[in-house]
Amino acid sequence: MTSFMEVLSGALPTNAILTGDAAAPYLTDWMGELKGEALAVLRPSTAQEVSRIVTICRDAGVVIVPQGGNTGLVGAATPVTKRAAVVVQLGRMNRIRRVDARDNAATVEAGCVLATLQAAAEAEDRLFPLSLGSEGSAQIGGLIATNAGGTMALRWGMMRDLVLGLEVVLPDGRIWSDLSSLRKRNLGIDPKHLFIGAEGTTGIVTAAVLKLVPRPAARATAWLALSRLEAGPEFLSLALQHAGGAVDACELIPRQGLSFASAHVDGAQSPLDPTPDWAVLMEISGPDAEHLQETLMSLLEVAMDRDLVCDGVVAASEGQRRDLWFLREAIVEGQRLAGFQIKHDIAVPVAEVPEFIRVASDRVSKLDAHVLVSAFGHLGDGNIHFNLSPSASADPAELSKCVYGTCLEFGGTISAEHGLGRKKKKIAKDLQAVQTCPFEIESLLDPQRILNPLSES
Amino acid sequence: MTSFMEVLSGALPTNAILTGDAAAPYLTDWMGELKGEALAVLRPSTAQEVSRIVTICRDAGVVIVPQGGNTGLVGAATPVTKRAAVVVQLGRMNRIRRVDARDNAATVEAGCVLATLQAAAEAEDRLFPLSLGSEGSAQIGGLIATNAGGTMALRWGMMRDLVLGLEVVLPDGRIWSDLSSLRKRNLGIDPKHLFIGAEGTTGIVTAAVLKLVPRPAARATAWLALSRLEAGPEFLSLALQHAGGAVDACELIPRQGLSFASAHVDGAQSPLDPTPDWAVLMEISGPDAEHLQETLMSLLEVAMDRDLVCDGVVAASEGQRRDLWFLREAIVEGQRLAGFQIKHDIAVPVAEVPEFIRVASDRVSKLDAHVLVSAFGHLGDGNIHFNLSPSASADPAELSKCVYGTCLEFGGTISAEHGLGRKKKKIAKDLQAVQTCPFEIESLLDPQRILNPLSES
Ligand SMILES: Cc1cc2nc3c(=O)[nH]c(=O)nc-3n(C[C@H](O)[C@H](O)[C@H](O)COP(=O)(O)OP(=O)(O)OC[C@H]3O[C@@H](n4cnc5c(N)ncnc54)[C@H](O)[C@@H]3O)c2cc1C
Ligand SMILES: Cc1cc2nc3c(=O)[nH]c(=O)nc-3n(C[C@H](O)[C@H](O)[C@H](O)COP(=O)(O)OP(=O)(O)OC[C@H]3O[C@@H](n4cnc5c(N)ncnc54)[C@H](O)[C@@H]3O)c2cc1C
Repeated sequence: MTSFMEVLSGALPTNAILTGDAAAPYLTDWMGELKGEALAVLRPSTAQEVSRIVTICRDAGVVIVPQGGNTGLVGAATPVTKRAAVVVQLGRMNRIRRVDARDNAATVEAGCVLATLQAAAEAEDRLFPLSLGSEGSAQIGGLIATNAGGTMALRWGMMRDLVLGLEVVLPDGRIWSDLSSLRKRNLGIDPKHLFIGAEGTTGIVTAAVLKLVPRPAARATAWLALSRLEAGPEFLSLALQHAGGAVDACELIPRQGLSFASAHVDGAQSPLDPTPDWAVLMEISGPDAEHLQETLMSLLEVAMDRDLVCDGVVAASEGQRRDLWFLREAIVEGQRLAGFQIKHDIAVPVAEVPEFIRVASDRVSKLDAHVLVSAFGHLGDGNIHFNLSPSASADPAELSKCVYGTCLEFGGTISAEHGLGRKKKKIAKDLQAVQTCPFEIESLLDPQRILNPLSES
Repeated sequence: MTSFMEVLSGALPTNAILTGDAAAPYLTDWMGELKGEALAVLRPSTAQEVSRIVTICRDAGVVIVPQGGNTGLVGAATPVTKRAAVVVQLGRMNRIRRVDARDNAATVEAGCVLATLQAAAEAEDRLFPLSLGSEGSAQIGGLIATNAGGTMALRWGMMRDLVLGLEVVLPDGRIWSDLSSLRKRNLGIDPKHLFIGAEGTTGIVTAAVLKLVPRPAARATAWLALSRLEAGPEFLSLALQHAGGAVDACELIPRQGLSFASAHVDGAQSPLDPTPDWAVLMEISGPDAEHLQETLMSLLEVAMDRDLVCDGVVAASEGQRRDLWFLREAIVEGQRLAGFQIKHDIAVPVAEVPEFIRVASDRVSKLDAHVLVSAFGHLGDGNIHFNLSPSASADPAELSKCVYGTCLEFGGTISAEHGLGRKKKKIAKDLQAVQTCPFEIESLLDPQRILNPLSES
């Protein structure tokens, strides 16, 4: 009898099969918290090869964990499984097949890195409007499978809103190709949504058609001190009224986040002195630089008049703009470098953000008097990364339970953009935090549960 | 043994059960082309009553056809079924439960008419940005089940993009309630999309949470003569670049459409003399009236300079704006009043619209020398209503096959926004026009196929 590995070797080129040391980097998650095991890491270069892998695994009862850039934050791409598993890493399928400016669409393979697509769109005077800290590594397939959000989701939506067509290898090995760029196409249930945000449980994305938008000729970017945390949602609301559809991003910046950044990241320094307790990084974009500046200035005037904003800087050049965004990302990097942390990617209704932050901060401080809280992120969507650097004696599980419990009291969700993956399944169940899907879709589509059986971990 | 009707009578208030003459209006489709039959038309007033109905029907093997405003154009709400059926008409569940301006969200029951919600949003200085000719009758549940588009989808998306949360009665009678207004909530596969656009085959929507946006303070509206059909996509592209995110609508208007309108609709008259072969009705909106006018004027200047546009009028008042939109809708009404017509709701890539219209018009004229073609609609999405008024001797089936076949040659779809329903299932199959869903979702979720089994008609 031929072994599973022998069958694989017969079906794939040698360099598509990694084991031992070569496989190791793909078996640990980005945070370095989860260590998995796999018979092999497979790196196919066509949808046909992916299809062959799925068929072979299905016949052998071997679990498949799809993987893109491995930047996911919930362990969904790490092979911690009860049954034997392989990782299918899409990185070699990284071609951009088409960037069509007239059609405002790009056709891309799943392993293409986000930053590569952004650059290709820009070269055609278009914008691919998804933007996040991991864009230098995260891949299109992973972004689709996690329905990634990021800093510009406020204006352009999440990945789901940018997907026009998909090519997917199904749990039974069929290749389902639907690479259409049409804007409207109502034919009953839209199969795309069975795969978007599904964390690789229902199919392996091999290619996609994505929406592009006209590249804005100009941007205006400001770092603004909020008079108080409560002014945040009110300022956002004012900005949305005032600037029409032009607001790309509105990120909340806490003083503690900047402390992490300036302590651990070279060149990261608060642009305002004194550093305010709370700031927002806001960006608007549009076709007309002068009008944007006017809009921003009159917005600030009103905001200061209403005592929502009390200080601020406006980027005077592209370099200054980059510095402000660098600082935004340095908050994440700084806290990581500061040592052990507990991330909480939550969302509450936008208007509830301040009260949620106050109550949750209070409660975690009662559990751990020395905990450092950095509550930052996508204010525009009510999506806050409520990240804790606890003291050594604190109980992480207890802290997380407190944060998530508080979030649920505020009508929120324990996962806004990162997903549940392997790391959050248990706490979601414990807290009954998840509006359970009314059907067992994964099992209906894949009765053997060969594809990324997250709850078997 | 108690009969099915007796069980129903025991479970619902008397006035919720219509038969005979009272039921008749609900058994024919809006176009008057399809006549159905039903044991009864049921008009529940709570989700619990809907749930009871589903349970009773399932136990009796009786098919359920959900119905909203009955304005759908593909016969999906008409009970033409092989098995005995009831219609479940949601019109009595028409409450607006909440319009929350701070949260930019509204919670509405399925039977609420679109225009009612639009008005309620406006009263709170918000916009519910879905707009279509049937808005005075179409209901939220129907709009969700058809994933309706309309004139403003270019900017705001289709109904799918506006749904935040749903309450649905499932094929087994369970009530699945997920009335959340959160903007981001990644918890794996998103169950909402099993129901949106599903034409009532997977569940009966009883309520929804919908997105609102800030109400634009100002609008600028223009009716512009295109120098030639081919200039349409180029003008659109220019407008999107030029006006940033402000373009709400860009509708294509053919001279033939205006002929229908002026012949049959009181007060419908072309605003331009001579009437151009092709015009567009464009609207932009934003916070600043003066800036909008400037944007529009400078756009027109460039468009005339490039010989894309050769004539035009700009609405000088809200009254004039309404007149232009009235004229847009009169195209539809005029052709209906002109006699028998064949509607084709197709989409092709935006840049292909002119060539598609030329080729398809040519081909249908060869089949029927006297056919009148009105090709109008949502240019911004590549979604054209290619509607024919054929001569008496023509073969409608042959004409439709020609239009759809041509559309497919252009990489298009035979249904852009209306769906397949009962009327288009067969031709879709004949032409193999539909990228088949890789799974039989309806049967997986509803093995008895009690809910609107469209292909059994
Ligand atoms: C510094 C940093 C900042 C971040 N910022 C954000 C942010 O702002 N917003 C946000 O939403 N996320 C953010 N993330 C997390 C985000 O989820 C990932 O960056 C990204 O979406 C995952 O892409 P990936 O290619 O790395 O996927 P992976 O981590 O490799 O995989 C993620 C999931 O997708 C599945 N998958 C991967 N490829 C495929 C495929 N081809 N077919 C089917 N399933 C597949 C995997 O099985 C897994 O379930 C951040 C991460 C980091 C490290
Ligand atoms: C003059 C006119 C102009 C139009 N313009 C447009 C346009 O621009 N864009 C566009 O997209 N459409 C347009 N339409 C068609 C459009 O599909 C409908 O107007 C609307 O979406 C249907 O809503 P309804 O409540 O009338 O649904 P119905 O016609 O009653 O039903 C439509 C479908 O939805 C299902 N359904 C209804 N209610 C529910 C529920 N509560 N739960 C589950 N399923 C349900 C039905 O079973 C059926 O499958 C137009 C129609 C007319 C008559």
